[in-house]
Amino acid sequence: MAGNRAYLDYNASAPLIPVARDAVVQALMQTGNPSSVHQEGRAAKAILETARRNVAALVAAKPDHVFFTSGATEAASTLLTPHFMMGRAPMRLSHLYASASEHPCILAGGQFPADQITIVPVDANGILDSDFLRGALEAHDRSAGLPLVAVQAANNETGVIQPTAEIGKVLKASGGLFVVDAVQAAGRIPLNISDTSADYLILSSHKIGGPKGVGAIVAVADLVMPRALVRGGGQEKGHRAGTEALPVIAGFGAAAEVATKRLNAEGWSFKTRDAIEQGIKSIAPDAIIHGEGANRLPNTTFFSLSDMKAETVQIAFDLAGIALSAGSACSSGKVGPSHVLAAMGFGGGTGALRVSTASDTDESDVASFLHALAKIVARRDRSKPVAVDAA
Amino acid sequence: MAGNRAYLDYNASAPLIPVARDAVVQALMQTGNPSSVHQEGRAAKAILETARRNVAALVAAKPDHVFFTSGATEAASTLLTPHFMMGRAPMRLSHLYASASEHPCILAGGQFPADQITIVPVDANGILDSDFLRGALEAHDRSAGLPLVAVQAANNETGVIQPTAEIGKVLKASGGLFVVDAVQAAGRIPLNISDTSADYLILSSHKIGGPKGVGAIVAVADLVMPRALVRGGGQEKGHRAGTEALPVIAGFGAAAEVATKRLNAEGWSFKTRDAIEQGIKSIAPDAIIHGEGANRLPNTTFFSLSDMKAETVQIAFDLAGIALSAGSACSSGKVGPSHVLAAMGFGGGTGALRVSTASDTDESDVASFLHALAKIVARRDRSKPVAVDAA
Repeated sequence: MAGNRAYLDYNASAPLIPVARDAVVQALMQTGNPSSVHQEGRAAKAILETARRNVAALVAAKPDHVFFTSGATEAASTLLTPHFMMGRAPMRLSHLYASASEHPCILAGGQFPADQITIVPVDANGILDSDFLRGALEAHDRSAGLPLVAVQAANNETGVIQPTAEIGKVLKASGGLFVVDAVQAAGRIPLNISDTSADYLILSSHKIGGPKGVGAIVAVADLVMPRALVRGGGQEKGHRAGTEALPVIAGFGAAAEVATKRLNAEGWSFKTRDAIEQGIKSIAPDAIIHGEGANRLPNTTFFSLSDMKAETVQIAFDLAGIALSAGSACSSGKVGPSHVLAAMGFGGGTGALRVSTASDTDESDVASFLHALAKIVARRDRSKPVAVDAA
Repeated sequence: MAGNRAYLDYNASAPLIPVARDAVVQALMQTGNPSSVHQEGRAAKAILETARRNVAALVAAKPDHVFFTSGATEAASTLLTPHFMMGRAPMRLSHLYASASEHPCILAGGQFPADQITIVPVDANGILDSDFLRGALEAHDRSAGLPLVAVQAANNETGVIQPTAEIGKVLKASGGLFVVDAVQAAGRIPLNISDTSADYLILSSHKIGGPKGVGAIVAVADLVMPRALVRGGGQEKGHRAGTEALPVIAGFGAAAEVATKRLNAEGWSFKTRDAIEQGIKSIAPDAIIHGEGANRLPNTTFFSLSDMKAETVQIAFDLAGIALSAGSACSSGKVGPSHVLAAMGFGGGTGALRVSTASDTDESDVASFLHALAKIVARRDRSKPVAVDAA
């Protein structure tokens, strides 16, 4: 990161933490293929299994139930499939139910055709409509297969936390499977896989301070698993083939270990978020903080300024040395309208800006952000047609 | 790698070369998500595109036609699908034809059901039976969809090089698509995507001295592409979603650049392979070198010793400080019978040992290998019931 810039885009990608960097660099020097039986292979395998234990600990799961993928998107593409296996017996899932504010990798639906996907609405605070889900699941035709439900633990744009335990209860009555995208929640709020009601959690390394290019499916038990998406050798117990991405897996494990320790020791303070939100409201009293009435992540603020297009404001912040997002980090540098805002009934407006921080974001970065915001808002107010008593 | 060990298992995984390591480490410090529009995001994007140019150059393809994946196995799982797209229009491939000696990630068949896969036999030297393929393609029912053919450029166990240009000609008459697994050939023999006749090449970083966890699909043109396997955001022009694995992609690019320069400047000498094979024959005149009559990679020797199980010999080598494989690096440390040997008509025997080297493998490593081999063979010969003229 260049000189004095303030990086406030942790939900897009968190800078690598030093211990994760060291773990990657150390694993880079490991010559062997973890599948090889010689000394070099066994050493590589040991690194892999240490990382597996650390990732399991982050969500209080069993190491045996952690399956590494190339990232959260691959994990989602793997889990969202009609083709599951109970041991060696095929098991059919006939319909996907996903909330309207899910990440694009969930909304893409994996291997479900569009007509086998139901989008469950969310309320103005971004919370899933559990009555709608209950009704949909009651109407679900089990003769074709079981339902699959996918819900985020916390939203990537707003930080809004879904009541997954309650949603899980609604689902369990129907005998379906529950995928919880814990990418943004992991490391920021305590997560115990059993408490979430999830059958499967999705995790990503680079959102918790590990390297890009690795994620995981964490299962509450491994009897029922999706048919492998990436197929070939028998790595990851046959659930995900291909030579394991050892360096980034090692980094993911190291980052998970740090995150677990931090959550257990001190948690994640709301101090920075409070300072940011109080600052926004003081500078721009008409600003809207999305999902404000909901339980949200301690590191995320998603806000709209009236009369200012978020994309334009984002560029102004960038020029002022502040990295933040207008919506999520979309692909290919394209910024489209936020489907999350639209789902919350705030579509077609100015868009919104996302500030997302680390547990140790500097006060000076917050000050820089607020300073830049004040200038941007002042510029807006000067250009407004205002009724003034001319002197 | 510990002290004086000789690592001769480059086909399982090549140790990371220093420039690739440096590229990974540098990219690790890159904070941004390549999809973010702020300064940090753009810097990450620049690293990505440099790597894309370098990987393209390795096989004389256009950078625009390089699509990064998490490895060769994901690339194979993506390409081996009945569901292709010509632009936005679906296009059906109805049957997969693959040689009997392909890597497990090809033989797994991707998304083709088993009854839509035909295995094409190979001869005693491991060369695909092109008459069989021609006949099969003539009998192919095009009304159900086009044929897809998958053949290795070079075999991972034997190093045998397939005549892909000729196979491509056979295929083109039928209007099908051609996937060439170039994982082991890349960087070791010159590869020009147009000369191979391939529509798609599969590449892997960690076989050419880059990091594990990244590979690529390289297309000769991008009009016809497989439907994305990993789906979500629009990364890689919609052909492969998910935040790009920047550090390992950077390392892959750096390794590709080195490999291209080396191949252009000096090629890859047969000196080491000749020394290994002459040594084997001198120590064990009854040894069989598989595919000896075929055009093979300059770095691979796959040989069988009579009366000695390869798995046992591999362990003896490991204890003697020599890392090599009995067959390919199978998953989970399991060593099964080699399907490649079986396909070449050498099944059910003692198995075979694979020695695979770098372009700069030390003479001392070859000497260590031959020294250990001599001891192992001497032990075998002592334990044999032999008819000798007692002194």
